Amino acid sequence: MRQSELFTKTRREAPADEVSVNARLLSRAGFVYKNSAGIYSYLPLGWRVIQKIAAIIREEMNAIAGQEIFMPALVEKKYLDATGRWDVPIGFRVQGLGVREASFVLGWTHEEIITEIASHYIQSEKDLPLAVYQIQTKFRNEPRAKSGLLRTREFIMKDLYSFHADQKDFEDYYQKVRRAYEKVFERCGLKTVYTVAGGGAFTVTNTHEFQVISPVGEDTILICDKCQYAENAEISKLKAGSSCPQCRGKIKKESAIEVGNIFPLGTKYSDAFKVKNRPIMGSYGIGLGRVMAAAVEVHHDDQGIIWPSSIAPFAIHLLELGKVSAKKVYQDLQKRGVAVLYDDRPVSAGEKLMDADLLGLPVRAIVSEKTGEKVELKKRSEAKAELVNLSYLRTLSSKS
Amino acid sequence: MRQSELFTKTRREAPADEVSVNARLLSRAGFVYKNSAGIYSYLPLGWRVIQKIAAIIREEMNAIAGQEIFMPALVEKKYLDATGRWDVPIGFRVQGLGVREASFVLGWTHEEIITEIASHYIQSEKDLPLAVYQIQTKFRNEPRAKSGLLRTREFIMKDLYSFHADQKDFEDYYQKVRRAYEKVFERCGLKTVYTVAGGGAFTVTNTHEFQVISPVGEDTILICDKCQYAENAEISKLKAGSSCPQCRGKIKKESAIEVGNIFPLGTKYSDAFKVKNRPIMGSYGIGLGRVMAAAVEVHHDDQGIIWPSSIAPFAIHLLELGKVSAKKVYQDLQKRGVAVLYDDRPVSAGEKLMDADLLGLPVRAIVSEKTGEKVELKKRSEAKAELVNLSYLRTLSSKS
Repeated sequence: MRQSELFTKTRREAPADEVSVNARLLSRAGFVYKNSAGIYSYLPLGWRVIQKIAAIIREEMNAIAGQEIFMPALVEKKYLDATGRWDVPIGFRVQGLGVREASFVLGWTHEEIITEIASHYIQSEKDLPLAVYQIQTKFRNEPRAKSGLLRTREFIMKDLYSFHADQKDFEDYYQKVRRAYEKVFERCGLKTVYTVAGGGAFTVTNTHEFQVISPVGEDTILICDKCQYAENAEISKLKAGSSCPQCRGKIKKESAIEVGNIFPLGTKYSDAFKVKNRPIMGSYGIGLGRVMAAAVEVHHDDQGIIWPSSIAPFAIHLLELGKVSAKKVYQDLQKRGVAVLYDDRPVSAGEKLMDADLLGLPVRAIVSEKTGEKVELKKRSEAKAELVNLSYLRTLSSKS
Repeated sequence: MRQSELFTKTRREAPADEVSVNARLLSRAGFVYKNSAGIYSYLPLGWRVIQKIAAIIREEMNAIAGQEIFMPALVEKKYLDATGRWDVPIGFRVQGLGVREASFVLGWTHEEIITEIASHYIQSEKDLPLAVYQIQTKFRNEPRAKSGLLRTREFIMKDLYSFHADQKDFEDYYQKVRRAYEKVFERCGLKTVYTVAGGGAFTVTNTHEFQVISPVGEDTILICDKCQYAENAEISKLKAGSSCPQCRGKIKKESAIEVGNIFPLGTKYSDAFKVKNRPIMGSYGIGLGRVMAAAVEVHHDDQGIIWPSSIAPFAIHLLELGKVSAKKVYQDLQKRGVAVLYDDRPVSAGEKLMDADLLGLPVRAIVSEKTGEKVELKKRSEAKAELVNLSYLRTLSSKS
């Protein structure tokens, strides 16, 4: 894409009300726009990141036999009455104009909806196991939406639900999902810690979170420095300095930006919707905007974002500096299906270089009077630049 | 995909409360599930259709320089107060639990949101024209949601917004969108009529709708049998039997299921949000579920759906009948990236054949004791079957 045609522009200053690193950098670089507290639009570059994250998630969910569907945001009262979750304070209520009583909640999770659907198709044990997921917008009335895109009131989530004939089958699948989640986060450039946590409004048993250790994290976890066993401080009886219950290593306290969670649900929902064979259920979530925000928190420097190449909006940022045109290089890369952002704007070299650091594409390629037939290549994550042939540049880039 | 692994099943009978052909067939075939009046889930086959329609729309929107973004469903009161649309009855109101006043509407359109965003990036005439679109869920409090998926309370929509320096540039782009829309509908197997219509809650001028002529259509249009000039009866002064104002052909009355509309907006929204240079705006919508439902209304017979191949969930329905396995054919097609649904279920030949007609994939391929080394091929839209080699089958199918 030609940068002269991209409608967003960078800003020197972040909006005054944004305090988190992720929202400050994503706003300045034009990836997102804040419409209301905790409510963002994804602009072209940000939307490309979300679509890349979605593609990675789809691949890993399909690999564990997940079938993709799409459920509604409007969840009628009858669904939540069946499980006693109509009054959970996190739900936004919806009503028509001039109607006295709200009859819908904006879906903040979809256990009830998917369980009713499944009850129509699960006739016997032969129809189990079953795993269904969607990538869809969720709504939670967070009293104080903060931390930028790490905790918002409207967000895109992948939610997977599974149904099993017995506890053993459920537990096997739970471990499969755990490994799939670790792959998703690793592919998105995030190192996560598998953490024991509480059940919230979902279940009475313990659940598991995938935490990214970061000083701006909203959660506190207690983690073993040897085997990485971890518990969320909310439910943990461990103390910093004590020894690990698993390996006797030393427990330390860390701040950590939960990016995913998995819940054993037992038969709570399959009982409520009278599903044949009372399947054992699990539900499993990943916040896509949260993955994007966590990646920015972990991968940035004073100049801007440093995207992991797997989720970067473009593979190469091609800059033409001075009176030279990089059009031929651009067309060559385009023809080969390389995702390239071509800075063809009539602005100063200094502005282009600053914007390239802020936007944070993995590879910066400069064509200028100095580079001659070659291209100056610099990885965003490294300081040194080198002159390379165009043919080398082509091999570096992932496909769009 | 193996049909034995697909969690949905066909039903002999449609739900008693569905009267429209589209909802009856889509429910029976397991493409959708009705959760509440006018609110549906897309199940795996239905979701594949929607994703195919989305891909076609994206291609055509990108071809007219549309930049894809994603805006929130929660639209804060301040946005609609700016244009006087807070009280439009179609909007669902949203409020937190225990809060006295609603502070959001569920976005039923996004002129206000996009115009505010654009106002931050349009600094001068150099930043025009600008075209931005999204594929996102909309909500409209339809008093009597009926006609199945043709008119729902929650639906996935492509909405495009454009900003122009002057009226001439706007009008040129409006015609470009018209042609892009005609391409989208044609590619989705729909023949549409470009119809003059009213402005509703969007604008005071006339607008244009893309209507599919169908006996179950909710709209009445007056159309010339010679030049196809058409007006929506809601605003038309034409009468059946009168002569066409364009070509003197004969006007007739038809029922018709609007699948898209385009609106000239003037400067109503750019004035409200004080956008520099007062751009002339247009907005342009396509309902994805409506395209799917219209395709079913137009393409079906007594046995079931007849998908246009461009939007079919799979290209080939491969059936193994009797004691023969079609596994090798399936694996061969899979390896070549052909989208194939493989009916490997241990059910009778009669049930498989009936389900194949109901599901409506473009090509049915049978492997049985009778077919030997060959495959029996029948197009869903044709009656005659023929024996073909596997190599021929491969060439017929579009890629997945």
